[in-house]
Amino acid sequence: MHSDKLKKIIDTAMGRRKADIVLKGGNIIDVYSGRVTRKDVAICGDTIAGIGGYEGEQEIDVSGKYLSPGLIDSHIHIESSYLTPEEFARITVPCGTTTVIADPHEIVNVCGRAGLKYMINASKKAALKVKFMVPSCVPATPFENAGAVVTSKDIEQIFEEEEEDVLGLGEFMNAVGVINNDDECINKIVTAINSGRVIDGHSPGLTGKALNAYISAHIENDHECMSLKEMEERIERGMFVLLREGSACHDLKALIHGLTPENSRRCLLCSDDRQIKTIFEEGHINSHLRFCVDYGIAPAEAVRMATLNASECFGLRDIGGIAPGRKADIVVFNNLSEFKPEQVFIDGKLAAKDGEYILPIERYDTSAVSASVNVRDFSTDALKLKLKNENVRTIDIIPGEVATKAGSARVAMTEDGDFAYNEAEDIMKVAVVERHRGTGNVAVGLLRGYGLKNGAAAISVAHDSHNIIAAGTSNEDIAAAVQEIIRMKGGMTLVRGGKPVCSIPLPVAGLMTYMGAEEFNERL
Amino acid sequence: MHSDKLKKIIDTAMGRRKADIVLKGGNIIDVYSGRVTRKDVAICGDTIAGIGGYEGEQEIDVSGKYLSPGLIDSHIHIESSYLTPEEFARITVPCGTTTVIADPHEIVNVCGRAGLKYMINASKKAALKVKFMVPSCVPATPFENAGAVVTSKDIEQIFEEEEEDVLGLGEFMNAVGVINNDDECINKIVTAINSGRVIDGHSPGLTGKALNAYISAHIENDHECMSLKEMEERIERGMFVLLREGSACHDLKALIHGLTPENSRRCLLCSDDRQIKTIFEEGHINSHLRFCVDYGIAPAEAVRMATLNASECFGLRDIGGIAPGRKADIVVFNNLSEFKPEQVFIDGKLAAKDGEYILPIERYDTSAVSASVNVRDFSTDALKLKLKNENVRTIDIIPGEVATKAGSARVAMTEDGDFAYNEAEDIMKVAVVERHRGTGNVAVGLLRGYGLKNGAAAISVAHDSHNIIAAGTSNEDIAAAVQEIIRMKGGMTLVRGGKPVCSIPLPVAGLMTYMGAEEFNERL
Repeated sequence: MHSDKLKKIIDTAMGRRKADIVLKGGNIIDVYSGRVTRKDVAICGDTIAGIGGYEGEQEIDVSGKYLSPGLIDSHIHIESSYLTPEEFARITVPCGTTTVIADPHEIVNVCGRAGLKYMINASKKAALKVKFMVPSCVPATPFENAGAVVTSKDIEQIFEEEEEDVLGLGEFMNAVGVINNDDECINKIVTAINSGRVIDGHSPGLTGKALNAYISAHIENDHECMSLKEMEERIERGMFVLLREGSACHDLKALIHGLTPENSRRCLLCSDDRQIKTIFEEGHINSHLRFCVDYGIAPAEAVRMATLNASECFGLRDIGGIAPGRKADIVVFNNLSEFKPEQVFIDGKLAAKDGEYILPIERYDTSAVSASVNVRDFSTDALKLKLKNENVRTIDIIPGEVATKAGSARVAMTEDGDFAYNEAEDIMKVAVVERHRGTGNVAVGLLRGYGLKNGAAAISVAHDSHNIIAAGTSNEDIAAAVQEIIRMKGGMTLVRGGKPVCSIPLPVAGLMTYMGAEEFNERL
Repeated sequence: MHSDKLKKIIDTAMGRRKADIVLKGGNIIDVYSGRVTRKDVAICGDTIAGIGGYEGEQEIDVSGKYLSPGLIDSHIHIESSYLTPEEFARITVPCGTTTVIADPHEIVNVCGRAGLKYMINASKKAALKVKFMVPSCVPATPFENAGAVVTSKDIEQIFEEEEEDVLGLGEFMNAVGVINNDDECINKIVTAINSGRVIDGHSPGLTGKALNAYISAHIENDHECMSLKEMEERIERGMFVLLREGSACHDLKALIHGLTPENSRRCLLCSDDRQIKTIFEEGHINSHLRFCVDYGIAPAEAVRMATLNASECFGLRDIGGIAPGRKADIVVFNNLSEFKPEQVFIDGKLAAKDGEYILPIERYDTSAVSASVNVRDFSTDALKLKLKNENVRTIDIIPGEVATKAGSARVAMTEDGDFAYNEAEDIMKVAVVERHRGTGNVAVGLLRGYGLKNGAAAISVAHDSHNIIAAGTSNEDIAAAVQEIIRMKGGMTLVRGGKPVCSIPLPVAGLMTYMGAEEFNERL
């Protein structure tokens, strides 16, 4: 803050100068008192100067509308939308989202610190405020090669060097490491504590003593609650609970039953992963609000979860409410049931109107993260198996679930001992091709229940290490699919007869597209 | 945090080692869910490790009792108790107070930065946690000589050098300066904003645009609300409101009517000024709780105002709730109506039991603040007036109030034109004798309605500059009273016939006593 700027804000508040913008006659959702009140909002530069009767250089009639503080998604992986931060901003800001707490876990697993740096810089090209959590668990597993290792020393350095953009440590998935005092886990946590940062949690299923231990390590929130019991235990133990409604996970529906007037201040709203289709069809955090109000939560209480509560959880004192001195991040909603944003202001600038982002967007240079596919000596031969006999272990897909289970089968072998595609039992090869450091590693297994009849599919988005994963009915098709991913420097492809029939490049770290959201969604 | 310490806490939480202390079978006031639940609390060193069933080296049966997070007085001037911080701690910790947010406005007006330093160091001698706000308005008025000037540069330096103990900028009394963009006020505020500190407010009567302007300067709370209208307007504008119940001001009684389940999270409890007598007779913040629950506020909601809400307002994430990872500041109350603390733990140590402080207290060296009375060339002659005629202006006391009003009278004159004591109208001389820098300044006026019949009274505690103030029926008695204050290096005295009849020294900055609270209270 510069004193001249503050003086100008005070002059505006006092009415000694005209406000830059006055939003006239709207109904303010007052998250502090939990009420809705009809008053003008005077804006000076990027800041709210006053509430009450004001004159402005520009006066915008919002009578009959509802003014909400800008919405905050308190936990999201932007990469999961397949969009770069600028494009992600372009489609979420019109939904009323003005701030997201982003964990760039995917790109950092691929590109390390360069991935974080890219996300920070790309985010600055659009109006959306993106605050970052440093991924705490890179690599996420010791059983696979990721593109990077982020140590506690790295984290310390990041906290120092990216102070303004980084709020803390991202979801600590390695709960087992924490509660068993793994040295490197503890070092990361101590680094975060000693630099006064927030530590995000990720502790599905953890309960009792193990949950106590996890929380005693200053892990302050969790977005992985699926049951009321988990939610209640976490709140009681002092955690903030993030009610998640993403594209894959729909926990808000279950957890809303656990909300009470007494505990809702400890609850936030998040999406975790939200795909373009969901954003286009349902919206972003505004769809959470719609759901809450439908259920019977008072509108101001619902809005609090997406604003004030998040600002408290993450120590973001300058946002989260419509009040003097706060940043002018304001959403003009049509009503308190649909939560359709007619105008979205960020830092006092109109950024979106009637569902369209209206500010210019530059795209940040992706060169630092666009050569992420580095595969050595890959050939069809690498896919060949040498089976000892016809009895094999299989990876069985469970329909409709993310998890798989171990299985076994009796299959046919080729003359040289390789596995032959088994159409009757829907068993085919699946390969993981290391793509970060050119190690030449290729792992091949047998997958049951994928349903592909003829050809292969491959993609360079494969949680959490994001190597190339490919499955198919012949070595040739699988190999062609892998080669296509390599050619595109990341992406997804379908192959038949040794040729790609449909490909979508994801050249940004092998995770994100250069396309616009509309085009990408259609192609997908 | 050191990693070995964290590992030990985690081991305790997991049950891999016995807790140091387990509080068994008590009812925990869960400020997060707003409920009361019966569970054990396991303590490791200074930290709560777990909630649930635990074994401990020491197990304390608290069944049937109520466990509250340690109480926080969110705004107090310790000096107003006449006690040094160590002694203040000795009598407030047994009331369940474990943290106070102190504004050492009085001693800093006398001793400047040495006063702050003394308060910080003295506070560390007792278990009470004292977090300091740097007085923002020293001197408080340009019309009197204080002992120090605290500039924005000083504040910047204090923030850097006392980082651990100083939370922000103390109550910004110069609201007029803020809203009129006084340079030095703005500089102080900008310094606090840019170092990420909290700024306490003080804005009685401010409303509308002026209140907006004041809050737009990032002033985040106010303890001076006296009416519901003031309270509601401040909460709506994003302020935290501190409901005050001190020895002189009793605002909680009025403001409690404005508490709602929706706005109570923005309300805290404070005493501002609380004298020994009040503490002995009623308690400290626990008396606020009693009052709230009597009124009908749910106990967990009342306790929240004295714990979690204060921790949110001041960013004190490690206190404010009974949960893993928080400091083990716990009060064992007998019930939820009397709020009588049977045991008070601070940082895992039993600090008070059944109303008595049980830890040893050292006293910090006061030499840096004990030579605060520095008067030059004072004599009876300095008290003589040269009246032009018998028509004089008077300072009229309003019974029962702190404020006075301007008056006038027709009085008798001595031969040399001095004022003669007017018994019929109860008008006597009042003198302010500069005592900080030996300027020799003496101001004499006429006071009506003080009620003294024969003699003089003097004291070195005179808000906010704390010069010597004396009133009396003759020049000789007033002079003797001033001399007695000088002799004692601060204090209070009653004089008759030119001799002190009763004196209490206040040698610590002329504001505080060396005596124990019980003795001082009796002498008073």
